[in-house]
Amino acid sequence: MTAPQETTTAAPAARSPYDLPDVSGLVVGVLGGTGPQGRGLAYRLAKAGQQVVIGSRSAERAQEKADELGHGVRGADNATTAAESDIVIVAVPWEGHAELLASLRSELAGKIVVDCVNPLGFDKQGAYALKPEEGSAAQQAAALLPDSRVTAAFHHLSAVLLLDQAVDEVEIDVLVLGEERAATDAVQALANRVPGMRGVFAGRLRNAHQVESLVANLISVNRRYKAHAGLRVTDI
Amino acid sequence: MTAPQETTTAAPAARSPYDLPDVSGLVVGVLGGTGPQGRGLAYRLAKAGQQVVIGSRSAERAQEKADELGHGVRGADNATTAAESDIVIVAVPWEGHAELLASLRSELAGKIVVDCVNPLGFDKQGAYALKPEEGSAAQQAAALLPDSRVTAAFHHLSAVLLLDQAVDEVEIDVLVLGEERAATDAVQALANRVPGMRGVFAGRLRNAHQVESLVANLISVNRRYKAHAGLRVTDI
Repeated sequence: MTAPQETTTAAPAARSPYDLPDVSGLVVGVLGGTGPQGRGLAYRLAKAGQQVVIGSRSAERAQEKADELGHGVRGADNATTAAESDIVIVAVPWEGHAELLASLRSELAGKIVVDCVNPLGFDKQGAYALKPEEGSAAQQAAALLPDSRVTAAFHHLSAVLLLDQAVDEVEIDVLVLGEERAATDAVQALANRVPGMRGVFAGRLRNAHQVESLVANLISVNRRYKAHAGLRVTDI
Repeated sequence: MTAPQETTTAAPAARSPYDLPDVSGLVVGVLGGTGPQGRGLAYRLAKAGQQVVIGSRSAERAQEKADELGHGVRGADNATTAAESDIVIVAVPWEGHAELLASLRSELAGKIVVDCVNPLGFDKQGAYALKPEEGSAAQQAAALLPDSRVTAAFHHLSAVLLLDQAVDEVEIDVLVLGEERAATDAVQALANRVPGMRGVFAGRLRNAHQVESLVANLISVNRRYKAHAGLRVTDI
């Protein structure tokens, strides 16, 4: 039964930020899916019931790692992974980021691309932010993939926690950035599939650099507190 | 009574990151203390029992605002505020940041300076990060104040929540950055004085830019969710 105030509202109400699409039927690919971050995300998403393909340069290596993860994860080369997936997470090292994405422009056309790459440098004082020419890894992806729906998310996750089978809930908020609401909504919904994880919209791609480079700060937190730190957003 | 394992440890244990100094007797000055952020911090710290002086260009205006805040807050011109305080919070607009600090170099010598300035630009798409020549507002402060102990903290607080007398606990973690452990420890301890607030060490000043500019993302969160968002660090 619909309450009267819902039927008599003159102007359409703004859509609730908590009203997100059902993404449970979408195939998720993870480029660079054999690294710790990629494997961790693949494991958590597959365990939550998502169809997941992990990509690597070598299809054989990808299949080996997929078999280790279980939960129906498949392995393929990166191009096949991109072509077969609806949502494609980019979890490659920053050093190979531009080259890989440029090579997959056609396979990634029309897809939701989720960049989770953190451009960082390391020296004896720890980690520090690198500043990509385009502003951020996510903006570099958007520049190289004009036919894709590029978002940024999943930057602050600890691969150790993601891969720890003793951890049932991954208590973290995933900051999701992008230009297109339908795309960021889908990525938020994907994050919400993992118990404990929550997708939170956190701005446009021009504000991705600070989200990517905040990982340098989390590394400092981890060193000081011997932790696997993540973030929660308060008051939402 | 000391447990045996504490007396027989061969190597000194690393100091606990939770072992922080008592700062309850220190005087806290707030430069730009008549703005919303400065007044909010002054209010919360004074309410927690800290001696607080708010500074402004005009001592009269500072005293007026101090009287409004109550809890023993005093007002003074910025130079007097700096000279009379042990810990000096810099809460001025980014536009006046360099000029003010350069003018107070001698008053701030030897003091713990806490920069909480967020260099941001605004256009019709919202907020975006500005990149100071020195890397961040905090690094600019450190360059202008070579005789001070410069830290960065209190970036992500909502002035609305700080000033809301109906809010008893400010549920937020304060990321504290700096080069000198004794200084960052003191600032963490200061944050811990406010109910709900927690000071968390989050790296060196070279990693301050992303902490400052993350405010642009929190503004996007606030707009989308109609909230006063802050951050909590998980797993510590």
